[in-house]
Amino acid sequence: MTDETFLQSIINRIPTLDAAWNERAWARLDSLTKPPRSLGLLEDLAQRVAVLQRTETPAIPRKAIVLMAGDHGVTAQGVSPYPSEVTVQMVANIAAGGAAINQLARHAGAQVVLVDVGVKCDLLSTDNVVQARVANGTADMTEGPAMTCEQTLAALRVGIEQVAALAESGLDIVGTGDMGIGNTTPSAAITSVLTGVDPSDVVGPGTGLDPAGVIHKAEVVRRAIAVNTPDPLDALDVLTRVGGLEIAGIAGVVLGAAALGIPVVSDGYISGAAALVALRMAPAIKPWLFVSHRSAEPGHTVVLEALGMEPVLDLDMRLGEGTGAALAIEIIDAACTCMSGMATFAEAGVSGND
Amino acid sequence: MTDETFLQSIINRIPTLDAAWNERAWARLDSLTKPPRSLGLLEDLAQRVAVLQRTETPAIPRKAIVLMAGDHGVTAQGVSPYPSEVTVQMVANIAAGGAAINQLARHAGAQVVLVDVGVKCDLLSTDNVVQARVANGTADMTEGPAMTCEQTLAALRVGIEQVAALAESGLDIVGTGDMGIGNTTPSAAITSVLTGVDPSDVVGPGTGLDPAGVIHKAEVVRRAIAVNTPDPLDALDVLTRVGGLEIAGIAGVVLGAAALGIPVVSDGYISGAAALVALRMAPAIKPWLFVSHRSAEPGHTVVLEALGMEPVLDLDMRLGEGTGAALAIEIIDAACTCMSGMATFAEAGVSGND
Repeated sequence: MTDETFLQSIINRIPTLDAAWNERAWARLDSLTKPPRSLGLLEDLAQRVAVLQRTETPAIPRKAIVLMAGDHGVTAQGVSPYPSEVTVQMVANIAAGGAAINQLARHAGAQVVLVDVGVKCDLLSTDNVVQARVANGTADMTEGPAMTCEQTLAALRVGIEQVAALAESGLDIVGTGDMGIGNTTPSAAITSVLTGVDPSDVVGPGTGLDPAGVIHKAEVVRRAIAVNTPDPLDALDVLTRVGGLEIAGIAGVVLGAAALGIPVVSDGYISGAAALVALRMAPAIKPWLFVSHRSAEPGHTVVLEALGMEPVLDLDMRLGEGTGAALAIEIIDAACTCMSGMATFAEAGVSGND
Repeated sequence: MTDETFLQSIINRIPTLDAAWNERAWARLDSLTKPPRSLGLLEDLAQRVAVLQRTETPAIPRKAIVLMAGDHGVTAQGVSPYPSEVTVQMVANIAAGGAAINQLARHAGAQVVLVDVGVKCDLLSTDNVVQARVANGTADMTEGPAMTCEQTLAALRVGIEQVAALAESGLDIVGTGDMGIGNTTPSAAITSVLTGVDPSDVVGPGTGLDPAGVIHKAEVVRRAIAVNTPDPLDALDVLTRVGGLEIAGIAGVVLGAAALGIPVVSDGYISGAAALVALRMAPAIKPWLFVSHRSAEPGHTVVLEALGMEPVLDLDMRLGEGTGAALAIEIIDAACTCMSGMATFAEAGVSGND
């Protein structure tokens, strides 16, 4: 099966929901010992998982963060204050357990699956890294397409297959994460093309650009779009021309999770851009997608509007790695714990309000 | 020692901070493998705990929610859609582990200490309930003071002593919780008096009043304030005249935690009103106080402004019981885990941005 027919087969496999569970889940929540809807967003989250799992007692004990790492040729245009070698160094740090995502994933009870889908330089060590490199980073998108279509499809497949591998031993929820110096720039380009919002309104400081750097970054994004003229109605084309390998990998995680009926939680701006690509490729993913937090990176709010979804958290975070996803998974887990563990009014002998 | 001199001795004991730790904690956070301040609010939270604990590796392994239960004479004025018996029923439900707070506290790794500081009716069972009842509910504050000054001081002492008892076996953070049918009404009265905001702007639906009920509730609050003329500059007087036993108990938890150098996390509107009372009684508590979430109850935003603090979460919750505090404690715990577990740039061999 070619990567293209494989992708189509995955999209075709995304399950539809049983509409009857929608009301059934709310009825259960309204029977629990609390004023109706007084748990706010927790009830929305638990209700959604209950519908996806077709149960009154939703649970997500088996959790993972799939973290895709890749590099970007566009860093040659000076879009990040950090050098590209930091990607390899941070991959080593994550593999060794020293990064923020390691602490937050452990706190959430989630395993971290770190995937090299497109790092540029040799890894310092291959321990704890899934080696699935499609290319040594992308090409500089200001000079032509970031990737070939074949590379994009291969990177999507890496994401899909990582979820499938996790699902073999059981997976109830998966969060997405990214590592790749320079990757807010392709994320901004994807967001601009898919939403029609001007590049200057979707760029931000990333890892720490100064205001002049942010203006320059917007010009780089504008140039990349002008050179590549991606088709806004063809998300695969947009991903190929102005995207990135780890962004494609994350889009694959989103598509692969939905296809297997596993809730998937997108992280911040990079994951959000990837989720938007996945949604445009396959609108049927939407019920399976949760957005974790509102990134401090301004373009992420544009992505959230395009996704038509409200995030769980707003903690002014802008780190990536899946850190927001890990925290949101804790909240979703807590929400499920409430729905599944609380007594009903009848069970507890508590009077209702009527 | 009388309850009044006891209270003053507690207030006098609140420790001051070591200002040197302020910068030292930020320096540590900025040395960790992430763009500076990219963990947003998580860094603020970890930094605060680090300063309080005077360490570069803050940790809060021993957690508790102290949940104060009490009843309100003002329910005679029809301010809640639930009957007063629900307080006793919900106390039994919490004691049996069936309420939302039980699930969320367990999820956070926190024990629940349930205290009867002023329930009106006989408990259905005394299992798992700390019996420290000061009175069988408050008097109807539309006809006179809700409590005597002696009752208020006794209820404050109950809260202080509960924290002290927990601290004996070790306590790193404590969240506050409330159970008491009708208690958004005294919370609104306290908030109105202490902030000068009109009663109509600090009342809300509580457990589920309709719009006409909310208007009536504002009138009840206005009447209670007119009848009692509490002194806005004397928080103890305000608490006595238009407060409640569980609200005093929670204010005691806040004061007692601060006095013992233990971070304390307030929950929603009722706990927020209690924290505001505590802050007015003892401004030195402020560094020890964390506000967990922005309640959907509109008066809570007025309280947050008066406290001058930003909440961790905004999940449209309005349940009470300490549910928001339990969730926020998870986030604070995660923040500490990052600060204490992440590698520094030097340790990980990661290049900085300069």
